[in-house]
This record gives sequence, structure tokens and C-alpha cells, in this order.
Amino acid sequence: MEVQLQKDERLDYLLAEQNMRIIQSPEVFAFSIDAVLLADFANVPLKKGKILDLCSGNGVIPLLVSRRSNVPITGVEIQERLYDMAIRNVQLNDLEKQVTMIHGDLKDMPKELGHGAFNYVLCNPPYFKTTEKKQQNENPYFTIARHEIFCTLEDVVYACSRLTKPGGKVALVHRPSRLGDIITLFKQHRIEPKRIRFVHPKEGREANTVLIEGTRDGRPDVKILPPLYAFDEEGNYSKELEGILYGKQR
Amino acid sequence: MEVQLQKDERLDYLLAEQNMRIIQSPEVFAFSIDAVLLADFANVPLKKGKILDLCSGNGVIPLLVSRRSNVPITGVEIQERLYDMAIRNVQLNDLEKQVTMIHGDLKDMPKELGHGAFNYVLCNPPYFKTTEKKQQNENPYFTIARHEIFCTLEDVVYACSRLTKPGGKVALVHRPSRLGDIITLFKQHRIEPKRIRFVHPKEGREANTVLIEGTRDGRPDVKILPPLYAFDEEGNYSKELEGILYGKQR
Repeated sequence: MEVQLQKDERLDYLLAEQNMRIIQSPEVFAFSIDAVLLADFANVPLKKGKILDLCSGNGVIPLLVSRRSNVPITGVEIQERLYDMAIRNVQLNDLEKQVTMIHGDLKDMPKELGHGAFNYVLCNPPYFKTTEKKQQNENPYFTIARHEIFCTLEDVVYACSRLTKPGGKVALVHRPSRLGDIITLFKQHRIEPKRIRFVHPKEGREANTVLIEGTRDGRPDVKILPPLYAFDEEGNYSKELEGILYGKQR
Repeated sequence: MEVQLQKDERLDYLLAEQNMRIIQSPEVFAFSIDAVLLADFANVPLKKGKILDLCSGNGVIPLLVSRRSNVPITGVEIQERLYDMAIRNVQLNDLEKQVTMIHGDLKDMPKELGHGAFNYVLCNPPYFKTTEKKQQNENPYFTIARHEIFCTLEDVVYACSRLTKPGGKVALVHRPSRLGDIITLFKQHRIEPKRIRFVHPKEGREANTVLIEGTRDGRPDVKILPPLYAFDEEGNYSKELEGILYGKQR
């Protein structure tokens, strides 16, 4: 499949799957390890149901999840430039039949896509509160992807909750510093936290990433999975992260 | 110091401190590793302020904490038999000047001891909801120590919150399955979760214990400490747990 690249864009390998390619732009958006970790962590349905990815960026999560699930996947992205990149990424990987991208605001999605329409909702949202302008990146694409400009954490959790069927699941990746808020908002919006995994940069260090999955209208019962260490003592990717990034067969 | 032992009681070494002794009874109460982990985890004040330990059992936490803090420590225990053991443990270790035991219900303590009277409150509460009678141990001492008979988790968190000064800290040990409830109750009662450490039985396994510290009226910002592994691959105590149990100089 031939697709058009804009001048700042490049065609990268999508690391986890050597036969997938992804359009990125260092000036606009490049997917993060966090998105790859979320796609790996999520227990998405494989054969039945529907999957939704909010704050989808260039579509990296729908692309990754499509490799192990046969169910329809919808991605939602608010930034037109990234939505456009995601559309071309879907085409590039011949996924038009499985993956649908929507250009829109996640806050409108419960009305547009239907309450409880999905069995599994993923989101890698902006991490930072928009307090001080000066902390924000001057590049508006990055600022929107990283800061709560268009949606707060509560907007995200509320949308996830409305869009998920009772018994369906929601998975987020975020910073551990926000764990208290995430769990409180989950419970406020009837998503019961169930599986949590912390990612530590290396052994002996505090976690810098949290992966959390909850069940809509579930019963309270949290499992804390074994931690994931990103790097080993020598500063190389840990065996486990290497497996997640480059494919587990390697 | 000579103290009287009842016929089911024995005099054990308090493991972490070779020069401390503790009265226990296999028929009534023996302290758990969880209490030792909580005493180790808690960043108690060393020179100024006042420390409170709720659900104090035979007084193991006040005893352990007294070794590194000079501030007054109060322990509260509802079971008279355990309170009596705690009193004798305080005498046995010549701690009458620093440690005061109270026989009472934690729910009465905010009124008795004063709202905001403490800088640091610890609690190793009963872990299990009292749903089915048949799940409970037939020994009433164990049942009360392990099940939410006399106090629910909310009673515990509410009492901790009322008894702690603004800016003061609360530390609990519990089961990770209750993490969602703990964090929600903390925030409901104005204790902001700040430091969390998970204890895994060994590498690659889910956590079976959580240590959590929060600040009364603090700002939201959670740190996830490096995990603690209890056992190594051979099934021996890990180096770190050995240090906590037997003293860190060894």
C-alpha cells in the first residue's frame, strides 16, 4: 500500500511487529513506550465484542492491538494532523476492515458512539495538569498530547465509563503520582480497579509509570502484578521490555 | 524486669532487635511479619511529636518503633487479654516512660485522646470482611484480630484521620485486594496517599501485602517505592527482609 508522507514525516517500523510500519513525525507526534506497554498490558477481547482507543494519536495502539485481536477497533483523536496520520497508518497496514479512526473529542463520544457500546476501552491520555503555561512545550501538538488542554483526567475516566458495557473493561496508562486520583475517579464512575502493574525504570527505583485495568460495575478486588523493570543494571532494555518492544518470539 | 507469664504464653525474642523480648501466645496472638514491615516502612517522627498505634495487639509496633524514635508512643488494643500482654511487654522492655497502652475501642479514641492529637498514626488492622461466619477462625482472639468484627476499614481510616494533625501522617498495612477501598477512604477522610510499597512473596508473583502512608490534608502525589520481595528463589528470606527482621547491621 502506497501512502503519501508529509515533509516532516518518516516511515518507521512499529517495533513490536517487524512487518508493521508506522508514519511518525518528530515535529508532531511519535508514539511512546507507554503506548506499547498499554497495548501489551490490556487483556483485550480476541474474538468477540468491540474495542475503543481514546487519545489515539497516530493510531499506534489500534495497530498493535489488531495483531492479536480480530474484533473491530475504533480510535478517536482530537488533533486533525494526528488523525490524518492515523488514517494513513491504517491504510499502510491494510487494516481498513478492522480499524476505524474518528476525528473528534472524547467528550462527545458517548453520545456519538453509544453508551456502553464497547467491551474494552483503552486510553493513553495527557499526563500533566495544565497549570503553568511556561511548563508547556511551545509545540502545540506536543502540548495537547501531554497536557490536559482538551480533556482532564476526569473527562477521560467519565468518557471511558460511559462508553464501556457493564462487565466491560477500561485500561489506562499514567504516572503513579496520579494513582490516588485515578482510583478515586474510577470508583466514582463505577469502574472498579482490578489489575495494576507498575513500571520501574530499574530495580531499586520508584515506579514512573502505572498500568491500570478496571471493570465497569465490577466487585472490589485489586491485583498488583509483578513489576516491570524497563532497564537492567547496564542500562539496556530489560529482557521483558525487549520482548514487549521487539516481539516475544525473538 | 521480672514479669509474669500466663500458662499459654512464651517469651520470644523480638526478632528485629536482639535485645528486646516479647510475650506471645500461640493460642491468643503472635505478631506477624506484617507488623514488622509496617514498623519498618513508617517514617515516624524521631524527636518531636507523638505517635499512636491502633489495633496494637501485644504491642509489637510500639516496641519496634521505640528503638528509633524518642517521642511518646501510645498503643490502643480492644482485646483485654492482648492489652494485658502489651502492658507486660512494655514493662519487660523498660519502656514505661515512652510507651502508654490503652485498653479501648479505636472508635472512641478521637474523643478520648483528642482530635489531631498525633503526628503519626500506625495501624495493622483486621484484613477480612466479616461476611460468612464459617470463614472465621473458631478462636475468638484470632477472629477479632483478623476479621472486621469490632471495626471496619472505614472505622479505622476515620479514626486515623481524626486523630492525626493536619500535615501529620497515617500508615497502614493491608491486603492489596483492598487497595481501591483504602485509597478511596483515605481521600474521603482527607488523608492523601503519598508513599506506597508492595510486598511480593517472590519475584514474578503478585503482591500479597501493601504498605501505604498518607498525609492529613496533603497534596495529591503518590510515590510507588521499589517492591519488597519476601523470599528468594530458594525459598529463603530475601536479603532485604532478613535485614528488616533481624536488624540491618547484620
